Amino acid sequence: MQSFIKVEPTNHFPIQNLPYGVFKLKGKNDRQRVGVAIGEYVLDLAVLEAEGYFEGILSLEEEIFSATSLNKFMEKGHEIWRAVRKKIQNVLHADEPVLRDNAELRARALIPQSDVEMQIPVHIGDYTDFYASKEHATNVGMMFRGKEDALMPNWTHLPVGYHGRASSIVLSGTNIHRPHGQIKPADASTPLFTPCRQLDFELEMGCFIGPGNNLGEPISIDNAEENVFGLVLLNDWSARDIQAWEYQPLGPFLAKNFASSISPWVVPLDALEPFRVEGPKQDPEPLPYLKTEKADSFDIHLEVYIKGENMEQSDLIATSNYKYLYWSAAQQIAHHTITGCNLNAGDLLGTGTISGPDREERGSLLELAWRGAEPVELSNGEQRSWIEDGDELTMTGWCQGDGYRVGFGEVTAKILPAKVLKGKQEKVLL
Amino acid sequence: MQSFIKVEPTNHFPIQNLPYGVFKLKGKNDRQRVGVAIGEYVLDLAVLEAEGYFEGILSLEEEIFSATSLNKFMEKGHEIWRAVRKKIQNVLHADEPVLRDNAELRARALIPQSDVEMQIPVHIGDYTDFYASKEHATNVGMMFRGKEDALMPNWTHLPVGYHGRASSIVLSGTNIHRPHGQIKPADASTPLFTPCRQLDFELEMGCFIGPGNNLGEPISIDNAEENVFGLVLLNDWSARDIQAWEYQPLGPFLAKNFASSISPWVVPLDALEPFRVEGPKQDPEPLPYLKTEKADSFDIHLEVYIKGENMEQSDLIATSNYKYLYWSAAQQIAHHTITGCNLNAGDLLGTGTISGPDREERGSLLELAWRGAEPVELSNGEQRSWIEDGDELTMTGWCQGDGYRVGFGEVTAKILPAKVLKGKQEKVLL
Repeated sequence: MQSFIKVEPTNHFPIQNLPYGVFKLKGKNDRQRVGVAIGEYVLDLAVLEAEGYFEGILSLEEEIFSATSLNKFMEKGHEIWRAVRKKIQNVLHADEPVLRDNAELRARALIPQSDVEMQIPVHIGDYTDFYASKEHATNVGMMFRGKEDALMPNWTHLPVGYHGRASSIVLSGTNIHRPHGQIKPADASTPLFTPCRQLDFELEMGCFIGPGNNLGEPISIDNAEENVFGLVLLNDWSARDIQAWEYQPLGPFLAKNFASSISPWVVPLDALEPFRVEGPKQDPEPLPYLKTEKADSFDIHLEVYIKGENMEQSDLIATSNYKYLYWSAAQQIAHHTITGCNLNAGDLLGTGTISGPDREERGSLLELAWRGAEPVELSNGEQRSWIEDGDELTMTGWCQGDGYRVGFGEVTAKILPAKVLKGKQEKVLL
Repeated sequence: MQSFIKVEPTNHFPIQNLPYGVFKLKGKNDRQRVGVAIGEYVLDLAVLEAEGYFEGILSLEEEIFSATSLNKFMEKGHEIWRAVRKKIQNVLHADEPVLRDNAELRARALIPQSDVEMQIPVHIGDYTDFYASKEHATNVGMMFRGKEDALMPNWTHLPVGYHGRASSIVLSGTNIHRPHGQIKPADASTPLFTPCRQLDFELEMGCFIGPGNNLGEPISIDNAEENVFGLVLLNDWSARDIQAWEYQPLGPFLAKNFASSISPWVVPLDALEPFRVEGPKQDPEPLPYLKTEKADSFDIHLEVYIKGENMEQSDLIATSNYKYLYWSAAQQIAHHTITGCNLNAGDLLGTGTISGPDREERGSLLELAWRGAEPVELSNGEQRSWIEDGDELTMTGWCQGDGYRVGFGEVTAKILPAKVLKGKQEKVLL
């Protein structure tokens, strides 16, 4: 399939992808609306909607695409999503003249991506983070509890997860101040208040839910994927020293709530269909409510880059793949709702750090530098055990098709120095 | 101070209280709007707003009180809250004729509480649950880890907390089906899928935030109470067997996300001012960012009742008091935001179970029945180690003034039997 818009083979946004985002024109007091990425352009869906292109699928009065977030569309469910996707694919098709040959409409509906400012695409209600990579859980367990007890006994029986903080999820490009917090170094007799000294990234993907379920009505695993609107890249920033001191017995809290970054384009599950693969073999066999016969993973190549202040170019420091995840999104959804917990359109499920079997496939600095024991060597001669001020972290990912890529763009952010606090907060004890 | 509306001394809603709620007329397709409880009545603030009573404080166009939730009002901040409260107190005052002597307005603005259906008062963005009672944390620690290690080393240095599930917070009166989940009894070699066998309540209070802070700008402890809109009763239902199996290493997840119940009336902090008391002495002294010179607790008497299906009347099974909490709401807010995490108007902070020093002051069945070792004796001869199907749990609380009570009404809900699940979910292994 080809669009009349030229798309390079390495571009992330061919007609096979068509991810959804929310944008406005750069530098203007412009209204936010929904668009789809196609090559170097954004297709303004609010324009197509107003022109009646979605008649018969969506009612005009609902103003689904002139909305400031994707939530209304996410509530519609997979049949509507599929019909809209088909319509957009048709409008952009090389053989279809309706947009191709209408210069006036093209001028209004197709905007160069360089002219737009992407917005946070979804109003996120609840955010849940899982711990679905066996390699990651094993690495962390080995570092903190030793080789014998690396995986907790529950880990192979259920997708371990925890509730995260929705309010501090920010869009790619939002830079983040190093957080302050309470830590207790091994050699200290009392805790200290200090800027975080062990700042880390986590290579994750985020799964946006729609339409979700009512309270008390679990989603069965066989219907779980119908409740996935699409996927984004997710960097779940982590303050490891704050985490180590605070996390017992109720789990990570401040160590994770200062910021999580997502990429702007939400790739629909239908675009990933050609890249569906089996996940790792599950042993022991999961309980029936978590068991699926269908291949439920996706072959999504992932990369992490770092660029320190003294570096001319970014260094690739990790590669990984979504397919390494032991617990699938479908299993996460079936588990999350089995108590009757309700998921709403706009909720986000993080996968947890995606690490692979090889050394270079570790999805966090904690693992790459093995808790500081094996610092990562950078191309300019510097080393990293943890993220330093001025470091810019960028994650990208794509599915490789035959001559095209279904990509996720990127999620990037720079770590700025800790803010200078005042009053009682400034009494930093170093 | 007295209202022209007669209020019994044991009524929770005298003119000294004036809690906010959202209501609509019973049995009608009525619109939701904001009201204040006064004695046996609701004062319809949307009516007063439309009549211009809040001119000079709130602009008419904003429609703060004809909104379907309190969020817009919560965003306004404590100066506006105080001015509105003063205005309402004035309008309801025994000596003020403006409403008292206007029969037409009274008929429109004062609605018997028996004629209204309360609604969830707030659109809750993020929900955080703390673990702020030393007695509760110690009791739980003793049961699970023994007397020596009852409190984790971090507990006396910071208010331990974790992110909870906002979507499943329901209003008092919403009955709840017993959740299913995965558990692993001590004598089982593999986990089971079953309706929860150790269902529990948690006596908590919830603190609603407004207006909150921007990402990256921590709230100092001295300004923390300015960001408290008001308090409600909170029953944080817990599935102890699910919790025991799932919670390591990332904390409680499904054990808590099937439902949390709140009372409908949000009591403003200003109404609690006469009941301000010192909290427990803190030793060791907290770090400066958590230190407050001001008394920062409140004397709120709390009660828990249970009514089994075979019981004529409820039994009082626990009493406690908000003032027992070791970590105050101000400290919780200062800690929560110290990383830069943003709190928004409408966010909810739970205190965690509020247990007191005495045996009858334990705020959960887990503690009252000491993990089943000392079942609670009920007045009809039954016992309870855990909540049974058909049990109705009711919590209430109030501050006792001189001849009046500033009360919270109640939060109540009945536990219904687990739903019959189908397909893969029905393969319950008992």
